[in-house]
Amino acid sequence: MASTGSVNPDLAKERQKSTFNNEELTYFLYGGPENTKRKRYLQNLAIQDLSKMKLKQYATLSREEQYEQELQKSAYCFTMQKKLELNNPLERFYFREAIMPHEPAPYHLHNSMFIDTINKMATEEQKEKWIPLAESYRLVGTYAQTELGHGSFLRGLETTATYDPRTKEFVINSPTITATKYWPGGLGKTANCCVVMAQLESNGRKLGMHSFLVQIRDLDTHQPLPGVTVGDIGNKFGYAGIDNGFLRLNNVRIPRENMLMKHTKILEDGTYIKPKSERLIYGAMTFVRAAIVGDVGRGLAKAATIAVRYSAVRRQSEIQPGAGEVQVLDFQTQQFRLFPQIANAYALLAAGRDMLLFYMKITAQIDKGALEELPQLHALSAGLKAVSSWVASEGVEVCRLACGGHGYSEASGLPKIYVDVTPACTYEGENNVMVLQTARYLIKCCNAVQQGEQVPSLMKFLQSPPGGSSTLDVRLNLPDLVAAFEHRAARMTREAAQKLQTATSQGKPAHQAWNANAVELAAAGKAFMESYIVRVFAENVSKFKGQLQPVMMALCRLHAVTGMTQNLGDFLKDGYISSQQAAMLQQRLLDLLTELRPNVVALVDAFDFPDAVLDSALGRWDGQVYEALYDYSLRSKLNEKQVLDAYYKYQRPFMESQWQKNSQPSVTSRL
Amino acid sequence: MASTGSVNPDLAKERQKSTFNNEELTYFLYGGPENTKRKRYLQNLAIQDLSKMKLKQYATLSREEQYEQELQKSAYCFTMQKKLELNNPLERFYFREAIMPHEPAPYHLHNSMFIDTINKMATEEQKEKWIPLAESYRLVGTYAQTELGHGSFLRGLETTATYDPRTKEFVINSPTITATKYWPGGLGKTANCCVVMAQLESNGRKLGMHSFLVQIRDLDTHQPLPGVTVGDIGNKFGYAGIDNGFLRLNNVRIPRENMLMKHTKILEDGTYIKPKSERLIYGAMTFVRAAIVGDVGRGLAKAATIAVRYSAVRRQSEIQPGAGEVQVLDFQTQQFRLFPQIANAYALLAAGRDMLLFYMKITAQIDKGALEELPQLHALSAGLKAVSSWVASEGVEVCRLACGGHGYSEASGLPKIYVDVTPACTYEGENNVMVLQTARYLIKCCNAVQQGEQVPSLMKFLQSPPGGSSTLDVRLNLPDLVAAFEHRAARMTREAAQKLQTATSQGKPAHQAWNANAVELAAAGKAFMESYIVRVFAENVSKFKGQLQPVMMALCRLHAVTGMTQNLGDFLKDGYISSQQAAMLQQRLLDLLTELRPNVVALVDAFDFPDAVLDSALGRWDGQVYEALYDYSLRSKLNEKQVLDAYYKYQRPFMESQWQKNSQPSVTSRL
Repeated sequence: MASTGSVNPDLAKERQKSTFNNEELTYFLYGGPENTKRKRYLQNLAIQDLSKMKLKQYATLSREEQYEQELQKSAYCFTMQKKLELNNPLERFYFREAIMPHEPAPYHLHNSMFIDTINKMATEEQKEKWIPLAESYRLVGTYAQTELGHGSFLRGLETTATYDPRTKEFVINSPTITATKYWPGGLGKTANCCVVMAQLESNGRKLGMHSFLVQIRDLDTHQPLPGVTVGDIGNKFGYAGIDNGFLRLNNVRIPRENMLMKHTKILEDGTYIKPKSERLIYGAMTFVRAAIVGDVGRGLAKAATIAVRYSAVRRQSEIQPGAGEVQVLDFQTQQFRLFPQIANAYALLAAGRDMLLFYMKITAQIDKGALEELPQLHALSAGLKAVSSWVASEGVEVCRLACGGHGYSEASGLPKIYVDVTPACTYEGENNVMVLQTARYLIKCCNAVQQGEQVPSLMKFLQSPPGGSSTLDVRLNLPDLVAAFEHRAARMTREAAQKLQTATSQGKPAHQAWNANAVELAAAGKAFMESYIVRVFAENVSKFKGQLQPVMMALCRLHAVTGMTQNLGDFLKDGYISSQQAAMLQQRLLDLLTELRPNVVALVDAFDFPDAVLDSALGRWDGQVYEALYDYSLRSKLNEKQVLDAYYKYQRPFMESQWQKNSQPSVTSRL
Repeated sequence: MASTGSVNPDLAKERQKSTFNNEELTYFLYGGPENTKRKRYLQNLAIQDLSKMKLKQYATLSREEQYEQELQKSAYCFTMQKKLELNNPLERFYFREAIMPHEPAPYHLHNSMFIDTINKMATEEQKEKWIPLAESYRLVGTYAQTELGHGSFLRGLETTATYDPRTKEFVINSPTITATKYWPGGLGKTANCCVVMAQLESNGRKLGMHSFLVQIRDLDTHQPLPGVTVGDIGNKFGYAGIDNGFLRLNNVRIPRENMLMKHTKILEDGTYIKPKSERLIYGAMTFVRAAIVGDVGRGLAKAATIAVRYSAVRRQSEIQPGAGEVQVLDFQTQQFRLFPQIANAYALLAAGRDMLLFYMKITAQIDKGALEELPQLHALSAGLKAVSSWVASEGVEVCRLACGGHGYSEASGLPKIYVDVTPACTYEGENNVMVLQTARYLIKCCNAVQQGEQVPSLMKFLQSPPGGSSTLDVRLNLPDLVAAFEHRAARMTREAAQKLQTATSQGKPAHQAWNANAVELAAAGKAFMESYIVRVFAENVSKFKGQLQPVMMALCRLHAVTGMTQNLGDFLKDGYISSQQAAMLQQRLLDLLTELRPNVVALVDAFDFPDAVLDSALGRWDGQVYEALYDYSLRSKLNEKQVLDAYYKYQRPFMESQWQKNSQPSVTSRL
């Protein structure tokens, strides 16, 4: 986009009047000045290199062109990541973000699930063979689990891998149409092999789900191998740059050595060696879920940046009749929509950082053989993935809708962010299933507390006595806010546990009792994750000093108070808060909007997204939004010709047929 | 999509076990057996004709192809509408729906806003000249109001129309980049003229916004006229089949007679004749808003049909371990997501019918010169448009997310519905602005009640005394539910009115007091519209007899109880309902899910959408969803070649550069 060099005066004024140094906040977000500098260096490098490649604006391309351009950009990205020796995952992430912001690209699963699964599930010997091939892109892989008729329920998968001891091979089959592997990213056109999850059968015994490395295309000609039917699954809600694929396997034979055998084995004669723990087989997903939290938080941060900057530039309607149009940021309803989204973004980024630290702590223990904390890690990562993706995807739409008509243009960048964030509600575990897994763990801990047993520190809130009332007052002390959320989560968990007990004591089988209370259990799981986010965010903002502290405190309060007023019934129902407190919260929420108003542009500037990462006409740093929108329009493919072929083909003949029928008075070409 | 002829057995079983005759419900929805028969005749005719045209599936096309195909389908649609002499707007709608379901098409604004505006704002003489030209497509028009920098605030528009008495012409100009007309549908490539809203200036006086007919393209060559810069605005979030456009006018001269002069005039010497009432100028939008209610309700009904049928077919996970995977419709959490959406769809359709009847009643009065009811009509149509589009667009996403991964495929039809429904939150008046207009009317009526004045019947609920408590019990009597919603709306209105009075009595100017309480005012406006919908729905279901009555009553209860539990704080806060009643409502909501479970497929079947209208692999009547999905995949453009040019251009060179760098052990084409 062309920049005129000058900054929109309304936006410049916003930056002048902020009360804190946003550079300091940026340093906090990126882990200090050095890391911030490094992140900027990497992103600027990518942006400059890309500008030389004369690429077309993503939003102006057709799907096929988007796929092709993602291949082109990926080649640059991964060549440079090696050249720069970027081994730190965060540095890799920032570099990639500057090249393909919210653009799922063809090698994405190759570099994540494919290589990760080999690293986690393959023997040392297998890794030695495959990892160098994968890292040098001789093999381009993906991870093929879900099937046309089967999603997250592993035991339901139909693809079979039958061991043939005569040839020492597995025979892989898609026995039905519903067994077709469906959705894996990069599978359609890009990958030449994949990790296939299949039902293992040996010596006539069914042995459950296992992973196999299956080559699907010739490594030289890229043509599908015999027995392989593979292709792209077609247009989707976003995800245009990646070839999610389908795969049918008809008696495809792979050597015995292609089963991933770190934890489990088939011997030459077909004897099956069990894993030490079933849990170890399904471990890879926990990290992915933990990483999603920060990812979707970053998506929301981008959407908030776009909407807040645009709302500072946009003047629309009058507050005082005749006094001229005002910045839409001055409308209370606009503040009420947007400011909580800024707060949510900061909250999710904090929770994401906390989650990754927790993950690293627990996996270090697991590597030493201590598996006790695995259930807690699983419960937390599942629930947090769910709640963060809900919050972020709803928040992105709130931001988009706050941009009026232009929020519907792809030039705004907002549809692109939404269609990239919303799938996180479904992939790596459907959100409702996830919060129910969290609830299962909560119930277990709740029962343990009842039995007087110890529970992990995160679950200590379940030990607080029921009842009581909140000490929350106009000061909105953070500990009072955290306590309110924990009280609610504990109450909802206890009530659900009570209902489960009542149902089973009345003779209902446990699984029926569970399903008959699933809505309340899911609500308890969600409430727990909300309390976790509020607590982590509160701990986070308490660390700030100086001018930043009151701003971040206000932001954290806004996050908590918004959550409370949106779920007011949960807090009023058992008398934990009074009607007076409820009215106070509603008034304080509005006060917080006013308090934060001078700082909102600085708060989104602090996210430090370069224009190329936002990829938005509305979110530009310089606020020259209308020039950018107009510029975008000129590039529409429909504008390549003044009068389209479609006019001669369908419009003109139709018009003429209508004139004739109606024997119109003759009109010249000018009215 | 190919049909195998047989119906999925799970879906067939659902239809057998329903307790009512869904044909009867269909008759109710379409206004009797005759109208239903007619609707089916028209839709089947269109579907059969279209199937002969060998069109490609919409979701498999590029944007340019979608635009072209919409032109092709539009030609069929409007030729046939004339041939069949379809003058009833509902019949035209059903016919069009079968041809272009949720596909905004190029002539859409020509046939609605363009012709409507001429009919309402032009003199008889002008109409005689222009309407035949428009109806015979010699003129293809659109309605150009919004500008790049200006949306719903009419006075902010910058386009100017300056009268030149010497030549008796208006000179139309876009003085700045922000004055560029932006977004009008069909403007980019299709239209050859448009109604332009512009600031009128005559004899040096600025005279406010008026409408002008401006020709923009040569009627024969279709080339833009001198001074006209026009084009498509580029890719959007959906809306691919229509060419929303931009337009810049540089000293474009039009004859004096091209100003739409029914209510207002410029005489030859430039003398301005004022309208009798300002209101009359802006009347056209009320009908459009009223019509949106049913439209978005129908969108939600389609999404619910797709998600419910798919959830009956889809088996995923076990409830009882080892007992096999169950229909996802049996999970309580899935019921909790979907069933309220069925209820919402029925509620919105009921509200839409009621709104149109009210519109017709009031406009008949207006035509007789009685303008008293206009403010009420305006308040109701604005607020209902807002709340219904919010409910529908959120509901469509709930349905999409309830379909797991496949909900992200365009084959599901759900993304297409979402991107068609969500714009209703913004067009024809941004929703927050709309509910604030409703609130303004509520406050006026609330003050009138305080003064002991009469208010229209819809506003009588404001006369009920404050305080009191609900008589709601487990039977969930509909009048108790309606009373609860009206109590809430009245309380919120009174509280907001009180705050406004306090603020102004403290010396705050009225406009500041308004903005400082806008969040609560908007909430009051929304609460009123929700009470209106509940009341209309309750009146509606009370009309049913026989087996249908208990089912529709349960659906209405579910709608109301879901609304109450989602906003529980509003009802608990002033003690109107007790904690015990709140707990009862939460339990009864779950009971209602169980009660409705046997009938949900019949309830969506009753909407009577042919497969071609749903345009969904997941929502097919026969439930053969996996065959349809697979079939869709095969048609992806990326599958036209086995190995794409992009492979040779970007993937292969990249891979080779990586092998070389890493001096890989040589591997043959087979692993």
